[in-house]
Amino acid sequence: MTVEREPADRRSPIGPVHHVGIVVRSIEKSLPRYGELFGLAPDAAPQVLEAQGVRLCLLPTGRPPAARLELIEPLDAESGVARYLAQRGGGLHHVCFVVGSVSDELAYLATHAAELIDTAPRAGAEGLVAFVHPRTLDGVLWELTDARGTNEVR
Amino acid sequence: MTVEREPADRRSPIGPVHHVGIVVRSIEKSLPRYGELFGLAPDAAPQVLEAQGVRLCLLPTGRPPAARLELIEPLDAESGVARYLAQRGGGLHHVCFVVGSVSDELAYLATHAAELIDTAPRAGAEGLVAFVHPRTLDGVLWELTDARGTNEVR
Repeated sequence: MTVEREPADRRSPIGPVHHVGIVVRSIEKSLPRYGELFGLAPDAAPQVLEAQGVRLCLLPTGRPPAARLELIEPLDAESGVARYLAQRGGGLHHVCFVVGSVSDELAYLATHAAELIDTAPRAGAEGLVAFVHPRTLDGVLWELTDARGTNEVR
Repeated sequence: MTVEREPADRRSPIGPVHHVGIVVRSIEKSLPRYGELFGLAPDAAPQVLEAQGVRLCLLPTGRPPAARLELIEPLDAESGVARYLAQRGGGLHHVCFVVGSVSDELAYLATHAAELIDTAPRAGAEGLVAFVHPRTLDGVLWELTDARGTNEVR
């Protein structure tokens, strides 16, 4: 009997998409329009990530695993998010996947020619996170998180 | 007894996010890396939307309502997608919401100061779609679709 072998680079799927990051000038000014146009509202008050130089809040778009929208506002002019806002006027910024272990994913990606922005997990909005450079795949900034959202069974 | 009234602009939520659009130079060349890095694969062969001048395919990132990634490749140098690729080198392009009725949403949005790219629904990859101009909200190109995906009960 022949056992069919998976190719060596076949791996279990990542995901689901946890959120899509959107850089905005002011969360406070943007939020009412998300409510008015789309009926979307944050599930918690905006939180500050001092180390990243940003304030952010998450807008669920349905029951998880539905993706959230993450609005990101720079706290100063120095962060990468502030430069993105200055250069592009804000807009779509990154895609974040849920993973079981951020450090395991980083180890896997490092051995598969991914360019890691974070070589170790760091504290994010809801759990550990890490970013993968857009040069890795199709010019998209990819984020990994072990957070699943407060209203989903782990 | 006082009945609490909702504000006039309160509406039922849109969503979930159906997919995140990513402009790529070549679907054929990108797909193996989505498999190798993330374990993601398309649920069907790429399809051509001649009227839009694009080829596209959807990569599920989990059981719906988990968002999909939509890879979009221009068929020629004339489409908006081709210009986006030339100007920005591709990358994150739009966010698409599932809605009950695309035409009802367009009617609602038109009366709430949204700038519509499509004033009537048109044929998309899986159902009717319409696009809302990035000037409407936070520089994001928003898409609406009545498609829910082939593996989800309507």
